[in-house]
Amino acid sequence: MTLRNFVLLPLVLPALLQAAEVKPALMPLPRAAEWRPGTMRIDTRFHVTFASRPEARLQRGARRMTEQLSRQTGLPLDAPAGTTRPGAALAIDCGETTDQPDTLGQDESYRLEVTPAGARLKSATVVGALHGLQTFLQLVVPGEDSFVAPSVVIEDAPRFPWRGLLIDVTSHFMPIPVIERNLDAMEAVKLNVFHWHLTDDQGFRVESKLYPKLHQLGTTNGEFYSQAEIRHILAYAHDRGIRVLPEFDMPGHSATWLIGYPELASAPGPYSIIRTFGVYDPALDPTKEEVYRFIDGLIGEMAALFPDRYFHIGGDEVNGKQWKANPAIQAFIRRHDLKNEAGLQAYFNRRVEVLVKKHGKEMMGWDEVLHPDLPKGIMIESWRDHESMAVAARSGHPALLSWGYYLDHLDSAGKHYDVDPLGGPAKDLTPEQAARVMGGEACMWTEFTSPETIDSRIWPKSAAIAERFWSPAGASTRAGMYQRLDRVSDWLDWRGVTHNSNYLAMLQRLAPDAPIDLLKTIGDAVEPLGIEGREITQVYSQSTPLNRLVDAARAESVPVRHLRELVERYLAAPDAASENTIRRQLERWRDNRSRLEPFLASSFLMKDTELISVYLARIGEIGLEALDALHGGRRLPAAAAESRLGALAKREKPGGEVVIAAVGPVRLLVEAAAK
Amino acid sequence: MTLRNFVLLPLVLPALLQAAEVKPALMPLPRAAEWRPGTMRIDTRFHVTFASRPEARLQRGARRMTEQLSRQTGLPLDAPAGTTRPGAALAIDCGETTDQPDTLGQDESYRLEVTPAGARLKSATVVGALHGLQTFLQLVVPGEDSFVAPSVVIEDAPRFPWRGLLIDVTSHFMPIPVIERNLDAMEAVKLNVFHWHLTDDQGFRVESKLYPKLHQLGTTNGEFYSQAEIRHILAYAHDRGIRVLPEFDMPGHSATWLIGYPELASAPGPYSIIRTFGVYDPALDPTKEEVYRFIDGLIGEMAALFPDRYFHIGGDEVNGKQWKANPAIQAFIRRHDLKNEAGLQAYFNRRVEVLVKKHGKEMMGWDEVLHPDLPKGIMIESWRDHESMAVAARSGHPALLSWGYYLDHLDSAGKHYDVDPLGGPAKDLTPEQAARVMGGEACMWTEFTSPETIDSRIWPKSAAIAERFWSPAGASTRAGMYQRLDRVSDWLDWRGVTHNSNYLAMLQRLAPDAPIDLLKTIGDAVEPLGIEGREITQVYSQSTPLNRLVDAARAESVPVRHLRELVERYLAAPDAASENTIRRQLERWRDNRSRLEPFLASSFLMKDTELISVYLARIGEIGLEALDALHGGRRLPAAAAESRLGALAKREKPGGEVVIAAVGPVRLLVEAAAK
Repeated sequence: MTLRNFVLLPLVLPALLQAAEVKPALMPLPRAAEWRPGTMRIDTRFHVTFASRPEARLQRGARRMTEQLSRQTGLPLDAPAGTTRPGAALAIDCGETTDQPDTLGQDESYRLEVTPAGARLKSATVVGALHGLQTFLQLVVPGEDSFVAPSVVIEDAPRFPWRGLLIDVTSHFMPIPVIERNLDAMEAVKLNVFHWHLTDDQGFRVESKLYPKLHQLGTTNGEFYSQAEIRHILAYAHDRGIRVLPEFDMPGHSATWLIGYPELASAPGPYSIIRTFGVYDPALDPTKEEVYRFIDGLIGEMAALFPDRYFHIGGDEVNGKQWKANPAIQAFIRRHDLKNEAGLQAYFNRRVEVLVKKHGKEMMGWDEVLHPDLPKGIMIESWRDHESMAVAARSGHPALLSWGYYLDHLDSAGKHYDVDPLGGPAKDLTPEQAARVMGGEACMWTEFTSPETIDSRIWPKSAAIAERFWSPAGASTRAGMYQRLDRVSDWLDWRGVTHNSNYLAMLQRLAPDAPIDLLKTIGDAVEPLGIEGREITQVYSQSTPLNRLVDAARAESVPVRHLRELVERYLAAPDAASENTIRRQLERWRDNRSRLEPFLASSFLMKDTELISVYLARIGEIGLEALDALHGGRRLPAAAAESRLGALAKREKPGGEVVIAAVGPVRLLVEAAAK
Repeated sequence: MTLRNFVLLPLVLPALLQAAEVKPALMPLPRAAEWRPGTMRIDTRFHVTFASRPEARLQRGARRMTEQLSRQTGLPLDAPAGTTRPGAALAIDCGETTDQPDTLGQDESYRLEVTPAGARLKSATVVGALHGLQTFLQLVVPGEDSFVAPSVVIEDAPRFPWRGLLIDVTSHFMPIPVIERNLDAMEAVKLNVFHWHLTDDQGFRVESKLYPKLHQLGTTNGEFYSQAEIRHILAYAHDRGIRVLPEFDMPGHSATWLIGYPELASAPGPYSIIRTFGVYDPALDPTKEEVYRFIDGLIGEMAALFPDRYFHIGGDEVNGKQWKANPAIQAFIRRHDLKNEAGLQAYFNRRVEVLVKKHGKEMMGWDEVLHPDLPKGIMIESWRDHESMAVAARSGHPALLSWGYYLDHLDSAGKHYDVDPLGGPAKDLTPEQAARVMGGEACMWTEFTSPETIDSRIWPKSAAIAERFWSPAGASTRAGMYQRLDRVSDWLDWRGVTHNSNYLAMLQRLAPDAPIDLLKTIGDAVEPLGIEGREITQVYSQSTPLNRLVDAARAESVPVRHLRELVERYLAAPDAASENTIRRQLERWRDNRSRLEPFLASSFLMKDTELISVYLARIGEIGLEALDALHGGRRLPAAAAESRLGALAKREKPGGEVVIAAVGPVRLLVEAAAK
């Protein structure tokens, strides 16, 4: 069988399956799939077999897949992997027989064939097999008489070898269970690099036995990871085919280094943990030899702890103030002809790169480290813009794109999805330059995110980003992605990710006595502002509670998106059922305020909600007026329409650090009614 | 201050608090509380202090309370217990300074005083303090400017010293996290005995080093607790002031003993794990001395593992068939003048009691062990009826009531709540006899319950049972209990109990593509049948999937209860707002079927739902007709009403092992419209 036989993407199931059947929602889409008639029955007899004695990591992966299948279907599936018994089996044939460290660019491909008689998964490597297991899980849907997996042949491999998720554990500490469940979800969507932002002005989150004042004075309440915990997470990630990239941010973002070791600083101390967020002055002094001795020791210790070949030294947002103010540093710049602070940082980077290499690692940094003098082997991660990634690739550096994937902006999944590492300014890269683009990383900075809210900021949208990194360019459209995203989001529930499961509890916390449907009507109608919106409204610190409506609300309201889709369909081809559903929703918005009234004054956490609920009522009224006009075939006069659109615009941002997303579909109705 | 100064129960907050404020929902209600003006502010500076160096268990309890407070409020509260810093504190003064095993009847009282300046908790024992900490958590509500605890003085102590929850881990194995989160919830509502039903025909769930074939052959897939895991749970429970009562059911319910040790049996083997549920024949042979040697060894091993003074030997449901069929046993009965099989079991119990005593324990058994020859020290747990508990108490035995608290019947919280251990046939006990009633136990038998569904079968209703056991008789009414139960249910969410959080995911599993609100409309309208209803519809076994609507649905539909309450208020005093809310709900039931239609055929898990959705539509129509009549002041003719009531009755039980609870409030409307 060759690829010619495959139905290429977009991957819509053909009429082989009956229209009423539930279709699998694959994300990321595989490179190629050929759908066939028939289904494999999945019942309590389902089990896994191996072509040969499996490597231990694969065996654990198969066991975990079976447990996950049991969770998502509710079927008791207790047979240990490898058991032979009646019932359809998934047979795994994996070429790799010893445990290997995962490396950038390794073979991640697999072939998965499902037939009514059973399924076969073949791969050269364990990670390939692990990816195939996740695809298999996504294939299982309820059928007419049992759970089934539709017959299919999938040949799959990733487009980019580096598909990362960064989690910042400095702004807010993230306990081990948060990391674990996010690694579980990463495995589900084939993300393969966990970028662990471990040190910053707000915390030094990893135990150093060599320089214990780093974590002891750089954190409070024991909010750091012991080396044993780090090793646990490394093993946990390795089991899931995920490489762990540690980041030790230097020479800026280093206030927590300087508390215990002020001799490394560019200005006199004392230093302390910075509890607020932003770009601060503290920086290591690149002119001191003891700084390099210290870094040599630290990298040596951490290089032994973290097995991956890559080592991220940060390098972002050095404001240079301390360097400018220090005459000795300025003299050093002149003496070494470094021109300016950028030149000094380039000098620092070259010195650090030697140390990183000495300890057997490849250095990486944020795009600020890019400088003509920088050794070409250093990988550049671009966060400031897409262009700097293209520049890095053109100038010979391996490069990663993080710009466009900043989760703390709380953009829509669609907006992230439309960013392609090889699109935009990277479109005109030569094939050789494009080959230097290794992939990208979704970045979860946590200034406004707690262990309680982080999952809802990462998921489900990172599944869309994962598809961008994994699937062939043009594999799907934004709309095609959204058609599958809700199902993937539900699927992630069964991994223990809390993006859905804690939503109602967080809303109920706002007003313990209020009927939850009233709170949900508000929560569903709004979307929280991202970092730019929040940082200007008040000074946040690590101890600011993140327990308001803005924190409970999800980054992208699924109900509003669904309503917008319904309005679009209705406007294209009006029908009574759609109109009725739209009307009900608009009435709910209109009427919610009076029902919520008794609970608005009762709780300080409802203060944000008062105005929102007044505005939402008005938005509902405007929508109903437009719907009535459309229903009656009456045109809304231009002046009235303009006035209504103005009223909507005024009500879109009610404060409370949220926007009323509900305005979107209502605006469509008003515009249509005015035509 | 004496008790005379207290406002006695029912504990309704007086006008000291403004009407709009959120009031604490205490459950179980304390013995006495005096509410005062003012509130204590709870913000991120909140911390705990100790009057003297705290015992380690108390220190951990205070830390856990702070973490729980942080979870339920969303406030970062990182200060280690004992820290001194600005902000209101809870000061703990506990008389017990060394770690003591918890014992039946120990002092569990505490005094909690909250003032605007801070709170003070005083107790003689650590368990008293632990109870007070839970009460404190329940006091914290959102106020006008911050979270607050209202000023109050609470003097509290339990009515009954034995307040248990039984979890059957044999019918379905319950992994450690299930046990942990249920212990967390038990602590929350002051239940203090975890009755661990460890052995039965379906599994022998505890590792025996002495007789390893018990757990090795009595379970599959390693579904037993190692002794290390048992010790972990014992410590976990002790930390929460919970005693652990192990049950080793004998001489019946012992098939899993006989697989590896058939020489103990009353009939020739071989034996195997019984995968289905019911009363089976296998029983130990009470006539063999080696049986007592075996039991001596097993009790010796388990008595050393489980520290509690009580040891439960089961003794229930011996059908006597093997004894009747065995001539040697019959000869033994005649030789020893034991009269019959009941006499033989009494002989067995006397022999076992000697062994239990020998290993330093007090024996307990189910009410079947009650026999005139039984030593009076043996505690009787009555499951068959209330009367047997009264008989046991009259005849000199300490006694517990479990009848009326069987959670697998899926009765309403109110029905359980109305059962009083000292009510019914126990009303005429003398004070001396009544003093022998130690309390009761909620019993979670798990024939139809998986790790996924168990929480929704236990909670929140066991909070109502806990109040029955803890609070003074007459402390509240069924209605008063329900007024608080929803809040307590939400509160338990923050303990990690999954009764609420996995509901929507389980519904969505039925039809992955269906809008969740349509599935929720169905799920909210029905209630699952209890054990009697389910065991007659099909033969269940341990491998029967519990993933249908009946499993997702909650034992008592809160939305239906709320609607019924609303209908009752509306019928008593009609108002437009209530009528509108009722109408919306009835319309939702009426219209749900057509919206759900496209998804009914798509999944085998929706088969139960098809007829339910047709019936529910009709129930909605009948309700709307009645509501229209009431609205218009028209009387529904008697014949029409009778026909409608008949139609409702026919539609109450649609199959699928559920009842349509939605019938209840509609019936009220029809009856009212006919008047």
